[in-house]
Amino acid sequence: MNGAESLIKTLVDSDVDICFTNPGTSEMHFVAALDEVDGMRCVLCLFEGVVSGAADGYARMARKPASTLLHLGPGLGNALANVHNAKKGNQPMVNIIGDHATYHLQYDAPLTSDIEGIAWPVSHWVHTADSPGSIAADGARAVEEAGRHRVATLVLPADVSWGDNPDGATRAQPLPAPRRVPAEEIAKAVEWLGNGRNTMIMMGGAEVTAADSELLGKLKQATGARVGTDTFPPRIARGAGRAKIERLPYLAELALDHIKDVEQLILLGCKSPVSFFAYPNLPSVIAPEGCEELQLAVPGDDFTACLEDLLAAVGGSDAEPDRHALQLPELVTGAELDVNAVGAAFAHFMPENAIVVDEGITSGIPCTVYSETARHHDWLNQTGGSIGFGLPNAVGAALACPERKVICLEGDGSAMYTISALWTMARENLDITVVIFNNRKYSILELEFTRTGARGGVPGPKAASMLDVGKPDMDFAAMATGMGVTAWQVTSADEFNERFGAAMAQRGPVLIDAVIPTAWS
Amino acid sequence: MNGAESLIKTLVDSDVDICFTNPGTSEMHFVAALDEVDGMRCVLCLFEGVVSGAADGYARMARKPASTLLHLGPGLGNALANVHNAKKGNQPMVNIIGDHATYHLQYDAPLTSDIEGIAWPVSHWVHTADSPGSIAADGARAVEEAGRHRVATLVLPADVSWGDNPDGATRAQPLPAPRRVPAEEIAKAVEWLGNGRNTMIMMGGAEVTAADSELLGKLKQATGARVGTDTFPPRIARGAGRAKIERLPYLAELALDHIKDVEQLILLGCKSPVSFFAYPNLPSVIAPEGCEELQLAVPGDDFTACLEDLLAAVGGSDAEPDRHALQLPELVTGAELDVNAVGAAFAHFMPENAIVVDEGITSGIPCTVYSETARHHDWLNQTGGSIGFGLPNAVGAALACPERKVICLEGDGSAMYTISALWTMARENLDITVVIFNNRKYSILELEFTRTGARGGVPGPKAASMLDVGKPDMDFAAMATGMGVTAWQVTSADEFNERFGAAMAQRGPVLIDAVIPTAWS
Repeated sequence: MNGAESLIKTLVDSDVDICFTNPGTSEMHFVAALDEVDGMRCVLCLFEGVVSGAADGYARMARKPASTLLHLGPGLGNALANVHNAKKGNQPMVNIIGDHATYHLQYDAPLTSDIEGIAWPVSHWVHTADSPGSIAADGARAVEEAGRHRVATLVLPADVSWGDNPDGATRAQPLPAPRRVPAEEIAKAVEWLGNGRNTMIMMGGAEVTAADSELLGKLKQATGARVGTDTFPPRIARGAGRAKIERLPYLAELALDHIKDVEQLILLGCKSPVSFFAYPNLPSVIAPEGCEELQLAVPGDDFTACLEDLLAAVGGSDAEPDRHALQLPELVTGAELDVNAVGAAFAHFMPENAIVVDEGITSGIPCTVYSETARHHDWLNQTGGSIGFGLPNAVGAALACPERKVICLEGDGSAMYTISALWTMARENLDITVVIFNNRKYSILELEFTRTGARGGVPGPKAASMLDVGKPDMDFAAMATGMGVTAWQVTSADEFNERFGAAMAQRGPVLIDAVIPTAWS
Repeated sequence: MNGAESLIKTLVDSDVDICFTNPGTSEMHFVAALDEVDGMRCVLCLFEGVVSGAADGYARMARKPASTLLHLGPGLGNALANVHNAKKGNQPMVNIIGDHATYHLQYDAPLTSDIEGIAWPVSHWVHTADSPGSIAADGARAVEEAGRHRVATLVLPADVSWGDNPDGATRAQPLPAPRRVPAEEIAKAVEWLGNGRNTMIMMGGAEVTAADSELLGKLKQATGARVGTDTFPPRIARGAGRAKIERLPYLAELALDHIKDVEQLILLGCKSPVSFFAYPNLPSVIAPEGCEELQLAVPGDDFTACLEDLLAAVGGSDAEPDRHALQLPELVTGAELDVNAVGAAFAHFMPENAIVVDEGITSGIPCTVYSETARHHDWLNQTGGSIGFGLPNAVGAALACPERKVICLEGDGSAMYTISALWTMARENLDITVVIFNNRKYSILELEFTRTGARGGVPGPKAASMLDVGKPDMDFAAMATGMGVTAWQVTSADEFNERFGAAMAQRGPVLIDAVIPTAWS
């Protein structure tokens, strides 16, 4: 078999069995090898940001890495923003970046670039394969690295792909068990939980499962500690039946207030919270001065066991957490559409076990609030702040969990970074309902303009025009239709209720272009 | 004034007076400053690949740099592919990349990344500003660097933007005159041109003006040497009245044959030609073995003076070049649309002094051929091989030359990398006609699959599906309409003739979705 075949077989034998692709000439032997080796599902995306965002979403829901196939440095560049998000969210990813043949690089052909240089800022591990005989081992190593919640990037020169590999495939070593947090660390946390000071357990940087919430809820009951997550855990179980836990607000002003009384902060996965951005008159660090912090666990550790150990140590295993009861909002009727009407319908109709991908930015807030008591679901957040994660993440989540409904809440501005994800939704007939909050603004930036205090918080005409994505207004239903996705533009609450309710009751990709006023105006 | 205001004033005073933007929170003080300082035109793009591609197109037509405003490392990542193209085409660009405040970086907030690390592979010069007092000088330096046909990337931390700069703005030093090629180098070339061996002058890596073609044509007449360009000069004057010069073919097989008899190659701007990609059975180097090469000039040198010096030295100043006479193809009528019918109508209707941006890939070939004798025009090529350059380049070209018709020839596959450029065309009411070759294939990759010899040149079903962008078919007219651009989908030659002819006779953005069979099937 050739190098590409041995690599694909190694990936498949190592349980990496999906590849999101946007290939070019240097990847043609890899593409050809897809038909020579069984077991690799390949999903074509029309832009590399969709490739990497889909791999991120897949990993979050499948709890294992996907692979990507990208075309040299510029292809990786296009993928970079969503690789960044995956890295910040501690999601595994195996990137295969095709390069020129090793002997061709010296000639500096047009597509030659420093691929490793582009890869390092968004990867934990980068390696350039140098021979067909070792590419299988390189691929196994990449899978092993990714398995540790890391981004692994393997550069694959064309001649390594097409060259003969007489040794064939190998496979990655099984993952070591997640680290169990040592007893002395648990003891320290238990001491904090019992010393009468204002203590909070904050979890983030990793999936927060239903079991984790339940354990957090019990710890709260047993110890009186506050329990919650950071602002954007990559995946969190929510809705009816889940224990009530807090969430750190996005706005630094609110986050500062939220934990201003905390004297001891026990961190699982996340680091000490900081402001998303710097502002002239706000501190960067969110925890109050003098707050003590204990980094009890880091991504890759066994969080559930850690929480169980804590609970056993405080004797709280039988505690009953306060749980969200099912409470569905009434639909808004007879009114113009607004974000509250969308939020109500969303929470009202969302089926059990749905997956929500949230890039609704400002407009998505009512959806977040109303759905806290909706049918139980998983929620995927923006982890690295790179806009354009939502539509691609939904693609990956839907492929990981084909039996579950995926709902993607998407801003009009943010949708446009990776809009071609709609085409892949149609091509793969994915069960995704996309809601576009079409408010014709970078509404978050209007808010941020005020928060930064620039020009006294009041944009002049040029600045205002840089925050305004109307003129011309966009019609996302038209765009979606052009990419093969059934779509409607709606302007009234009743229309939205009807379309969204219907979308929840059927399968396949649907887009609802929800024309709404700006939440902040 | 604050740092951002001093930077913008410095840019404007240094004749960099347009900024393509896709800002975020860390750039809000820069955005605010646009209203405090006169003279900077700001153009909002919905995706950073449009920002950088527009800056490239602007530079090619305005012969001076545009600035870009991008949001941290991921924003630069999204822009990277088209920055790569600009760098490979030796186009000037001044990138301003917002970053967190200097004191905020230590906290590793979600959007923190190694911006310089991402920038270096696509920049000639990278600098991170460290104080409001020096940002004006940093900006001037960036403009000076860009002026030497380079990509300059300036990282602008938020607190450098908002901090006070009591010294205010400065301005870039005037550009030094382009280097005149030394007499001894000219003499060496003259010796080659007179020694009776098979000699070719090849120009590339820079604009080939009408004057340059004329001089090349005269040199051909005076010396018998072959004269031409490399495959993808960033800008070339073509059409009726221009001297006949050769163009190196894209396909290595054809390129090798094209110059197989050349014994002496005199290079202006371009390097010795190499195959775009490596193939198992083709050499990387295009020039025949034993061919001697003289690198007479590099980008930034005075090509026109060099050609004049050569011509004077060979006594050919009065030579009459062989020029293209105006010859317009007949329109195809009464037939299904195909690439030949598109090419004929394109060349037939194109008005004098049009600008053509060519990312038509395989389908654009007849347009290239037919237009050689069409009304005179400028042609912009793909320079770095990163797909998605066409629509954004057209935006930049139209802003640089508002009085000229811009025609963008675009593949369906390539259009989808930066499709949101259509929205900026509508917003700025740019006089651009986009022709999408909608053949529902990555046709170039079907060809390349065969050329690489992968799987005997015959894709299996999975590989074939990776080259197929039908399923679902895309409707670019619908997408364009959704972004505010008037558009039609056409399937017959007559419809295309009518729509394209009308588009040439009016102003403003238009898209024609030309549904055609694959050229290679």
